Amino acid sequence: MKVKQPTLVLNAARCEQNIAAMVSKAEKLGLKLRPHFKTHQSAEVGKWFQNRGVEAITVSSIDMAAYFIEAGWQDINIAFPVNILRLDHLRALSQKAEITVLIDNMASAQFLDEQLDFSLHAFIEIDTGGNRSGVHHEQKEETLKLTEFIKHAERINLRGFYTHAGHTYNARSKGDIFKIADQSLAYFDSIRKHLDNEGEYEFCWGDTPSCSTMDDFKSINAISPGNFVFYDVMQYAIGACTLDQIAVAMYCPVVSKHVVNTEICIHGGAIHFSKDFINLNDQKVFGLLASKDSWKPIEDCYVRALSQEHGMIKVSREVYDQISVGDTLTILPVHSCLTAEAMGEYKTLSSEVITHFAQKNRDKARF
Amino acid sequence: MKVKQPTLVLNAARCEQNIAAMVSKAEKLGLKLRPHFKTHQSAEVGKWFQNRGVEAITVSSIDMAAYFIEAGWQDINIAFPVNILRLDHLRALSQKAEITVLIDNMASAQFLDEQLDFSLHAFIEIDTGGNRSGVHHEQKEETLKLTEFIKHAERINLRGFYTHAGHTYNARSKGDIFKIADQSLAYFDSIRKHLDNEGEYEFCWGDTPSCSTMDDFKSINAISPGNFVFYDVMQYAIGACTLDQIAVAMYCPVVSKHVVNTEICIHGGAIHFSKDFINLNDQKVFGLLASKDSWKPIEDCYVRALSQEHGMIKVSREVYDQISVGDTLTILPVHSCLTAEAMGEYKTLSSEVITHFAQKNRDKARF
Repeated sequence: MKVKQPTLVLNAARCEQNIAAMVSKAEKLGLKLRPHFKTHQSAEVGKWFQNRGVEAITVSSIDMAAYFIEAGWQDINIAFPVNILRLDHLRALSQKAEITVLIDNMASAQFLDEQLDFSLHAFIEIDTGGNRSGVHHEQKEETLKLTEFIKHAERINLRGFYTHAGHTYNARSKGDIFKIADQSLAYFDSIRKHLDNEGEYEFCWGDTPSCSTMDDFKSINAISPGNFVFYDVMQYAIGACTLDQIAVAMYCPVVSKHVVNTEICIHGGAIHFSKDFINLNDQKVFGLLASKDSWKPIEDCYVRALSQEHGMIKVSREVYDQISVGDTLTILPVHSCLTAEAMGEYKTLSSEVITHFAQKNRDKARF
Repeated sequence: MKVKQPTLVLNAARCEQNIAAMVSKAEKLGLKLRPHFKTHQSAEVGKWFQNRGVEAITVSSIDMAAYFIEAGWQDINIAFPVNILRLDHLRALSQKAEITVLIDNMASAQFLDEQLDFSLHAFIEIDTGGNRSGVHHEQKEETLKLTEFIKHAERINLRGFYTHAGHTYNARSKGDIFKIADQSLAYFDSIRKHLDNEGEYEFCWGDTPSCSTMDDFKSINAISPGNFVFYDVMQYAIGACTLDQIAVAMYCPVVSKHVVNTEICIHGGAIHFSKDFINLNDQKVFGLLASKDSWKPIEDCYVRALSQEHGMIKVSREVYDQISVGDTLTILPVHSCLTAEAMGEYKTLSSEVITHFAQKNRDKARF
């Protein structure tokens, strides 16, 4: 495919294979699959999950929940500390679908208990070491207090416990992932031990690195990975996927060549890729140049720098000589969630447009 | 102002002061001002420039040019290596306004010479050390050849020479900026020396750090800074602005508090701020917590991490105790261009909505 503008290309076959693999893994291990839709944010891609029997999903905002309710989803976990300022919106959503929120602090729980005039499902979020949201793993007492409080709150139905072991993103091998996951699972389980009737609850576990590589989830009974739908260079660097599982690539036109540094300038910058990077051999890498047909990375060719609209691709002299102004380059993104968000639209390999929740109005200005 | 969702707040008074200061500096020094509109990307903010007599602007894409033509602009420099695949779009724009493109390689120049059936203005772009697009400063021969070629191309009108000394962004003091600018100006001038009739041409110089701090532009006769319209934490760290010149701030609701790390979790993540950061005392900083009224940074309080929707604010214990779930925090962004792009909309301090070219359709899903 030749493009005139930066285009996010979706390999639908790879994407469907990624979905099928995770669905089948969850089935085999008896895990409820609540896939996180924040990566693709697309009603169409959502249908590919529906076709595989998935019924419950995870999203990262109230607005994204509204979008997926419109697309027909009925069981939605908003995996973000509940925003108590938006009860009106949660009420409106709860009239249309089964909404679950995350609670990780007593102030929010008390507010909900006092203010709710409708019923809401909730997970208690635990920070098992990811150092983001969730009750910190050292605060068992607080977690148990919060559990008791929510169990007795009239309008809040405690669905279970949720954690995103986001520190697996710092892993650089399967061994690293397993080590982090083991520690996190132990923290999570230590909470579980204190519960009466633990069988009533879901214990839901996120993050693509662990869900992609682990075969034993121990006491976990639900998973909510998201990135696996596309994977990306970061997941490959972590050891969470193979190269031929990466299901999205940026196609960008070459606008200039710079022989002194053997660099290629593309239209495709921070507003298309996002600024996430990984360090490879002490070099910031914002994407990998790949071959046109197989999407296999080309050795020593990578996105060295991104400014707002420019991308600078460092290439070998041999590759440099093969590229002309006006060509289309294929680049594997470092972080597919943020690239998809920045692009707001996909094209399949057969040029079908796939929509994204964040579609930008600037598309209207295009020719 | 209290917000329920991440909101990019524009201090219109500060913004208009920034515009007035740059307009008056350019007038005083006899420089043509072609402000870069890629930072604000807003028809309304554009009007504030129009009100100060600005007539020529710079943008970073063909689509952004189309947007500003619709807003009434007639002299537009698309400061990006010309995309030869989009001549149809350039033709359509050239029928409505005076369009200038950048050329930095012979392949594009030859293509235009062969294919153009309409007239186009062009700057030759020089890479004076920024290591992005432009003919590299070591390639004087190539620059002179390109100059000769374009001068004789029937449909290309050589307007002059353009450089973005983007390496001033690595500066951390005015002294650093001056040093980089001096070197870049010398490179730029060395090209100039080889021209006959140099008085015919514009020598246009970008980048906010140098345009904000320099008082002598030597042989430069035009400038096209962009970021100065808002400034940000990065510009402050460089030494290009004072804190009270920063004209945009993110307002974000507090969703959770984490006592173990004295961190505050806000709704406001990578999809709102972008992932640009600066290093302060060996710590990645994605934004600075500021006081509500003066927008003055609060000591030792900063955005430590951003994931897709979450922002984690490291605060002192004293500040921690003053913040409640549901509060609104004020955060100065590291890179205002990318934050504005990610947000796609502004609110003024009086809650007036100011549009942005990248407005996202997801706004329709809001309540």
